[in-house]
Amino acid sequence: MSQANDTFRQLEKASPGTRQPLDRLLDDMTWNEQGLMPAIAQQHDSGEVLMMAWMNRASLEETLETGRVCYWSRSRNRPWRKGESSGQQQQLIEARLDCDGDTLLLLVDQLGAACHTGRRHCFYTRLTREQGEVISAPLVDPETLYGASQ
Amino acid sequence: MSQANDTFRQLEKASPGTRQPLDRLLDDMTWNEQGLMPAIAQQHDSGEVLMMAWMNRASLEETLETGRVCYWSRSRNRPWRKGESSGQQQQLIEARLDCDGDTLLLLVDQLGAACHTGRRHCFYTRLTREQGEVISAPLVDPETLYGASQ
Repeated sequence: MSQANDTFRQLEKASPGTRQPLDRLLDDMTWNEQGLMPAIAQQHDSGEVLMMAWMNRASLEETLETGRVCYWSRSRNRPWRKGESSGQQQQLIEARLDCDGDTLLLLVDQLGAACHTGRRHCFYTRLTREQGEVISAPLVDPETLYGASQ
Repeated sequence: MSQANDTFRQLEKASPGTRQPLDRLLDDMTWNEQGLMPAIAQQHDSGEVLMMAWMNRASLEETLETGRVCYWSRSRNRPWRKGESSGQQQQLIEARLDCDGDTLLLLVDQLGAACHTGRRHCFYTRLTREQGEVISAPLVDPETLYGASQ
């Protein structure tokens, strides 16, 4: 068994309170072929799932150090400090890793709108077997967040 | 602008109640190079984020048709009807798509433990700048769910 599998197999059976050094976990997590991992942002108090974005090792380390959420922007190919353009920052309350070390859950305090459309969260299209339907409206006009060029 | 971009750009500015046929959305969503999309499962009433797994078009269509959540298993390379081995099924309450059509949020009713470790959810390792710490215990022994071969 590889060290990576071994690390997460041990945690599976571990009791609450069991600890591993962060560096070992970072080494053994499953980053994809671009060095990225999905990170789900959830509003810590209301439980709303706000968005899903991607992190690399450096952006996760920065987030844990600073307490301000930093993703990796796949479209811009650079670190994306959430809110750097829009002002709609995410403060980290708690970061959690899943059982097989390939997905992050970030409990955050989201200022304003998490979605670039100006909506509180990104999941505003409900799907049924026949159709998709928009179910929420923007809180703010995205032009006020990003300027008219958006 | 491609039809796919056009579809989601139109929905960005759309008012609540705006609809698109499911087939058009399925055609225009961003499936990755393996034809998959991340799907986040959230317990519909408590708001707990239970797990993240992957769906292809067929598994999403099946889930919307049957109301029972079906993922695509990357390790087994076949449809994975959640609970088929363990009995811990997920009933779909509502499916939602995100703003750029590349992530799903599934509001579900989870029977028992969502995680293969026997825990309620998969996100049981809290990360800080120094370490990871296990913060929850199994509800059930995974051997009772999957047998001693697990």
